[in-house]
Amino acid sequence: MDNTALIAMASVITAGLTIAIGSIGPALGEGRAVAQALSAIAQQPDEAGTITRTLFVGLAMVESTAIYCFVVAMILIFANPFWDHVAAGG
Amino acid sequence: MDNTALIAMASVITAGLTIAIGSIGPALGEGRAVAQALSAIAQQPDEAGTITRTLFVGLAMVESTAIYCFVVAMILIFANPFWDHVAAGG
Amino acid sequence: MDNTALIAMASVITAGLTIAIGSIGPALGEGRAVAQALSAIAQQPDEAGTITRTLFVGLAMVESTAIYCFVVAMILIFANPFWDHVAAGG
Amino acid sequence: MDNTALIAMASVITAGLTIAIGSIGPALGEGRAVAQALSAIAQQPDEAGTITRTLFVGLAMVESTAIYCFVVAMILIFANPFWDHVAAGG
Amino acid sequence: MDNTALIAMASVITAGLTIAIGSIGPALGEGRAVAQALSAIAQQPDEAGTITRTLFVGLAMVESTAIYCFVVAMILIFANPFWDHVAAGG
Amino acid sequence: MDNTALIAMASVITAGLTIAIGSIGPALGEGRAVAQALSAIAQQPDEAGTITRTLFVGLAMVESTAIYCFVVAMILIFANPFWDHVAAGG
Amino acid sequence: MDNTALIAMASVITAGLTIAIGSIGPALGEGRAVAQALSAIAQQPDEAGTITRTLFVGLAMVESTAIYCFVVAMILIFANPFWDHVAAGG
Amino acid sequence: MDNTALIAMASVITAGLTIAIGSIGPALGEGRAVAQALSAIAQQPDEAGTITRTLFVGLAMVESTAIYCFVVAMILIFANPFWDHVAAGG
Amino acid sequence: MDNTALIAMASVITAGLTIAIGSIGPALGEGRAVAQALSAIAQQPDEAGTITRTLFVGLAMVESTAIYCFVVAMILIFANPFWDHVAAGG
Amino acid sequence: MDNTALIAMASVITAGLTIAIGSIGPALGEGRAVAQALSAIAQQPDEAGTITRTLFVGLAMVESTAIYCFVVAMILIFANPFWDHVAAGG
Amino acid sequence: MDNTALIAMASVITAGLTIAIGSIGPALGEGRAVAQALSAIAQQPDEAGTITRTLFVGLAMVESTAIYCFVVAMILIFANPFWDHVAAGG
Amino acid sequence: MDNTALIAMASVITAGLTIAIGSIGPALGEGRAVAQALSAIAQQPDEAGTITRTLFVGLAMVESTAIYCFVVAMILIFANPFWDHVAAGG
Amino acid sequence: MDNTALIAMASVITAGLTIAIGSIGPALGEGRAVAQALSAIAQQPDEAGTITRTLFVGLAMVESTAIYCFVVAMILIFANPFWDHVAAGG
Amino acid sequence: MDNTALIAMASVITAGLTIAIGSIGPALGEGRAVAQALSAIAQQPDEAGTITRTLFVGLAMVESTAIYCFVVAMILIFANPFWDHVAAGG
Repeated sequence: MDNTALIAMASVITAGLTIAIGSIGPALGEGRAVAQALSAIAQQPDEAGTITRTLFVGLAMVESTAIYCFVVAMILIFANPFWDHVAAGG
Repeated sequence: MDNTALIAMASVITAGLTIAIGSIGPALGEGRAVAQALSAIAQQPDEAGTITRTLFVGLAMVESTAIYCFVVAMILIFANPFWDHVAAGG
Repeated sequence: MDNTALIAMASVITAGLTIAIGSIGPALGEGRAVAQALSAIAQQPDEAGTITRTLFVGLAMVESTAIYCFVVAMILIFANPFWDHVAAGG
Repeated sequence: MDNTALIAMASVITAGLTIAIGSIGPALGEGRAVAQALSAIAQQPDEAGTITRTLFVGLAMVESTAIYCFVVAMILIFANPFWDHVAAGG
Repeated sequence: MDNTALIAMASVITAGLTIAIGSIGPALGEGRAVAQALSAIAQQPDEAGTITRTLFVGLAMVESTAIYCFVVAMILIFANPFWDHVAAGG
Repeated sequence: MDNTALIAMASVITAGLTIAIGSIGPALGEGRAVAQALSAIAQQPDEAGTITRTLFVGLAMVESTAIYCFVVAMILIFANPFWDHVAAGG
Repeated sequence: MDNTALIAMASVITAGLTIAIGSIGPALGEGRAVAQALSAIAQQPDEAGTITRTLFVGLAMVESTAIYCFVVAMILIFANPFWDHVAAGG
Repeated sequence: MDNTALIAMASVITAGLTIAIGSIGPALGEGRAVAQALSAIAQQPDEAGTITRTLFVGLAMVESTAIYCFVVAMILIFANPFWDHVAAGG
Repeated sequence: MDNTALIAMASVITAGLTIAIGSIGPALGEGRAVAQALSAIAQQPDEAGTITRTLFVGLAMVESTAIYCFVVAMILIFANPFWDHVAAGG
Repeated sequence: MDNTALIAMASVITAGLTIAIGSIGPALGEGRAVAQALSAIAQQPDEAGTITRTLFVGLAMVESTAIYCFVVAMILIFANPFWDHVAAGG
Repeated sequence: MDNTALIAMASVITAGLTIAIGSIGPALGEGRAVAQALSAIAQQPDEAGTITRTLFVGLAMVESTAIYCFVVAMILIFANPFWDHVAAGG
Repeated sequence: MDNTALIAMASVITAGLTIAIGSIGPALGEGRAVAQALSAIAQQPDEAGTITRTLFVGLAMVESTAIYCFVVAMILIFANPFWDHVAAGG
Repeated sequence: MDNTALIAMASVITAGLTIAIGSIGPALGEGRAVAQALSAIAQQPDEAGTITRTLFVGLAMVESTAIYCFVVAMILIFANPFWDHVAAGG
Repeated sequence: MDNTALIAMASVITAGLTIAIGSIGPALGEGRAVAQALSAIAQQPDEAGTITRTLFVGLAMVESTAIYCFVVAMILIFANPFWDHVAAGG
């Protein structure tokens, strides 16, 4: 159980949990926004254009938090500076 | 309990938990969106086309967070750089 | 408690928990969607066709997250690359 | 506390928890769908046929996630490849 | 603390928790369905026959998840293959 | 801390927790059903007979999950096959 | 810390937790049923007799789950077969 | 840390937690029942007698679960058979 | 870390947690009852006498569960039979 | 880590947690009661006197549970019989 | 890790957690009361004086539970009798 | 791992958690109050002055609990009497 | 694992958790306030100016609790007095 | 397991959890705000400009808390002063 294994384990576990936990909030938030958008279209069909445009901007904002998590998970797996350091014998 | 086993265990456990935890949010969010879509169709049948189109775009956004989790789980099982390193005797 | 046992234990426990935890979200989400579909049919019987069609597409999307979990659980039990490695004396 | 006992314990505990945790979601989801179906019948008795038909399809979808859990639990008890391996002296 | 005791303990604890945790979901789900059935009967007494018939089918579906748990608990206590193996000196 | 004590402890603790945890769901579910029954009687006094009959059938279904837990708890205390095995010197 | 003490501790702790945890569900369920009964009487005073009669039957059902817990707690303290076995020098 | 201390600690901790946890449910349940009773009196002042009578019977039922917990706590402190056994040198 | 210290620690920690946890339920329950009483008075000022009288009886019932916890905490601090036994050199 | 330190640590930690946990319930309960009182005054200004009088009696009841916790915390810090015993060399 | 460090650590951790946990309840309770006060003023502007006066009395009651926590935290940091005892070489 | 490191670690961790946990309640409480204020202004624009004035007083009360946490965190980092004692060689 | 590493680890972990936990409350509170503001504007467009002004003041108050957390996290990473002490060889 | 590995592990785990936990609140808060914005547009289409402008300002405020978390995570991975210290042989 040397340094290489410890950092590899930490990176594997953290990468998975980061994207797993980080997908709960955006998924629920987007689901809520989409649900309300459908309700709004049903209530005011003439404004469907404005509603879907606002919806997509909002979804992009919410999705951005999931993207942050995905980026961090990818960095931890494929561009991990700590792993590079120990794998290089540091 | 050498490095190989530790990283394998961490990868197995993380892969499973990633997709398991990561499926809770999208499933609930999609369920909510679908439920509201049905309610909207019942309320405004004439807009069924717009509603289902918006629904599918929204479901795709929500599903994307589940896809992120699935991708990370698959990477951890089949393309794990840390495992490749230790399995190669690193 | 050698490598074989550790990876086998991790695979068994993870496979079970993956499908167990992964079934909570889809089951609740599908239950909600079905419940709302019935309510929508009762409210607008003439649109029963559109409603059930949208419902089935939505259920398929929600079920897909449960399928991901089931696939990962099956991979961990029957096509586990880490187990294959250690069982082969790796 | 050799390999045999460890894998047996892990299988026993995981099998039980898998079906136990896996029954929470489907039971709640089905309860909700059934409750809404009864409400829908009371509201629109003439559509009782369509409602119960949609209900049964939906219940089957929800039940499927419980079935996944039951299948995994049964595999872990009666067709566990890891146990077969160690019980055979592997 | 040899193998016999470990597997016996795991079986005892898992059997109890399986049926205990597994009874929460069905009990709540059935309670909800029954409650809604009574409400539906009060609202539409003429459909009491259809409502109770649908209720009983639904309760059977929900109860099935509790039955799965009870079956697994009974298997773990009275037909446990792992226990049979170690009790036979395996 | 030999095998006898371990299995006895596991049985005592599990028996208690099984009935304790297992009583939460049924009690809440029955409370909900009874509450709704009273509301239904107040709303439709003429159907009090049908309502109470349906209520009792439903309560029996819900109570059955509590009975499962009680049966398992009693088996663990008074007819525990693992205890019989070790108490007999197994 | 011999067998006697271990089983005594397990019995004491389990007896207390069993009745403590087991009283949460029934108390909440009964509180809900009583609350609804009062609301029903206020809504339909003429049916007070039917309502209170149904209430008492329902309360008895709910109380039964608390009784199960109390019975198990009393058995663990005053008629514990495992304790009798070790206290007798088993 | 001999047997005397262990059983005394277990009894002290369990007695406190039993009544502490056991008071949550009844207090919430009684609070709900009392709150609804006041609402019912305000709605139907002429039935104040029936309402308060039903309320007191219901409160007694709910309080009974708290009494069970108090009885068990008192038994554990002042009439603990396990303590009597070890304190007597058992 | 002899017996005296262990029992003293257990008593101190338990006494505090007993009253702390035991105050959550009654405080919330009484808050709810008081809130509803005020609402009822505003709705039916003429029945203020009956309402406040019923409120005080109900609050006394709810407070009783907090009193139980306080009594147990005081017993554990000032009249602890286990402490008396070990402090006396038992 | 002798007896003095252990009992001092237990007293410090318990005193803090007692008042911390014990303030959650009363604060929420009082907040609810005050909120409802304001709503009641807005609804029935002529009864402001009766409402505030009942409110203050109710707040005193709720506050009493916080007082119990504060008293126990103060006893543990400044009048702790166990500490007095060990600090005196007991 | 002698007595001084242990008691200092316990005091630091407890002081922080006491005020941290103790601020949740009052903050939520006060937020609710303030929110309702604003709603009440909007509903009955003529009673703004009575409402704000009652609000401030109520906020003072709620704040008092936060004050208790702050006082205990300050005592633990600046007037800790246990620390004084060990720092003095006790 | 001497006294200096232990107290420094405890102070660092506690300071962070104190302000982190302590910001949840006030943030939610203030969000609720602000939301209700906006709703009240929309409902009764003529009272905007009174509403915002009451809002700011209420926000100050709520913010005070966050300030308490911030003060304690700052004391633990920059004016910690326990650290001063050990850093001075105590 | 000397003092340097311990304090560095504690600082890293605490800094991250402080801002992570500390962002939950403000984000939810601000989301609620913004949502209500939009609802209020839709209800009373003529007061949009007053509403947005009050909203921004309220958001600033809520954001302040997140700022506190960010400040503490930055202090722990870049201006940590405990780290300065041990890094200087203290 | 020297200092380098410990700090690297702590940094990896904390960076992941910080952005994962820190994305829950903003995602839910933004989802709520977007949902309400769509509802407001449907209710008052003429104010769509004011509503979306207020929405974007509000989303920016909410997103800022996620940005704080992302910044801290990036600092911990790429500009970690503690890592620089130990990697430089400190």
